[in-house]
Amino acid sequence: MSKKKVVKIRHVKPEIRMLGIDDGAFQPHTKGVVDVIGVVFRGGYWLDGVMRTEVEIDGMDATEKMTSMIMNSPHYEQLRVVVLNGVTLAGFNVIDLKALFDKTGLPAIAVARDKPDFEMIRKALENLANSGKRWKAIENAGRLIEVQTRNAEEPVYVQFKGISESDARRILKETSTRSNIPEALRVAHIIASGLTRSEEKI
Amino acid sequence: MSKKKVVKIRHVKPEIRMLGIDDGAFQPHTKGVVDVIGVVFRGGYWLDGVMRTEVEIDGMDATEKMTSMIMNSPHYEQLRVVVLNGVTLAGFNVIDLKALFDKTGLPAIAVARDKPDFEMIRKALENLANSGKRWKAIENAGRLIEVQTRNAEEPVYVQFKGISESDARRILKETSTRSNIPEALRVAHIIASGLTRSEEKI
Repeated sequence: MSKKKVVKIRHVKPEIRMLGIDDGAFQPHTKGVVDVIGVVFRGGYWLDGVMRTEVEIDGMDATEKMTSMIMNSPHYEQLRVVVLNGVTLAGFNVIDLKALFDKTGLPAIAVARDKPDFEMIRKALENLANSGKRWKAIENAGRLIEVQTRNAEEPVYVQFKGISESDARRILKETSTRSNIPEALRVAHIIASGLTRSEEKI
Repeated sequence: MSKKKVVKIRHVKPEIRMLGIDDGAFQPHTKGVVDVIGVVFRGGYWLDGVMRTEVEIDGMDATEKMTSMIMNSPHYEQLRVVVLNGVTLAGFNVIDLKALFDKTGLPAIAVARDKPDFEMIRKALENLANSGKRWKAIENAGRLIEVQTRNAEEPVYVQFKGISESDARRILKETSTRSNIPEALRVAHIIASGLTRSEEKI
């Protein structure tokens, strides 16, 4: 349990251990669970580990499932930061960045390739149970900043907790080695969607 | 269906598309299936795709399952070579490198970190059904060569089909960027064992 408000990252080493998290493909507005894959990278270059869990489509368990996946992993002690593909998994199963940071002690950064339309999200939430709680979790992610990880043409949109804005910016730039998002996140997406596609075929 | 005996790889580009295949953990001598993960790498650096299938423990379906996983993959056309962790999956489910090459048209290279003891393998096979057919598949992999991928202290032991010895050596050296085995194979192992470990916990 972390009591710190911000983890100060003194020096962003090229080999900083980062966990990238993304979900597999699924049919929206259905019931069921979706695979979520966590990928451990040393900086932007080397894959060190993989973990998996699952969350409910449009459910309320994403924060709890991410916390337990991370803290039960053999890589937990080495991890320095968690990077997510936006603040939702499996539809509108919101990850509360603040709760995730408070429980794991790891700074959390949500990265989106498209600028989130919060007004649209808020309206969509109205059709779901616990819409107030979900919206609160989204608000907990804090303000949105634009970061140019690789070039000015493809900025990403970022929310963060437990880390300073300048550290978040540095980490994103250092680890986006192959695309405009951190390599751990790019690879988590490839694995999660590759596994889902193979499953459909079996 | 390939009619060629050997695919000549004119130039081993640093970005040659390689598929690395490895299986997840399992309890030996039990019944059931084991996850098999295929990882597409561009040379030794970038993960491009992931696929999955499953094979029976000590079964006879590894060659067929690898063939169909590869040929049904969206990456098939880009692939130039397949690298396996030895010639068996899930115990003694033998991959026939010759049949794999004949069917997919892709050269196949089996890499082992420890020198295989074929006499011991032959004896172990005697306890299984179809031992003659399994042994024949192992013989089809051809002679064993020693390759120093990174340094003389940690050579690997290699069998290959559909490719010249010198091309096989070059490809292994070029793509073993992080350890003494090709990066696609190192990462396939991490993913397959990471997913299996997570499953046990669920």
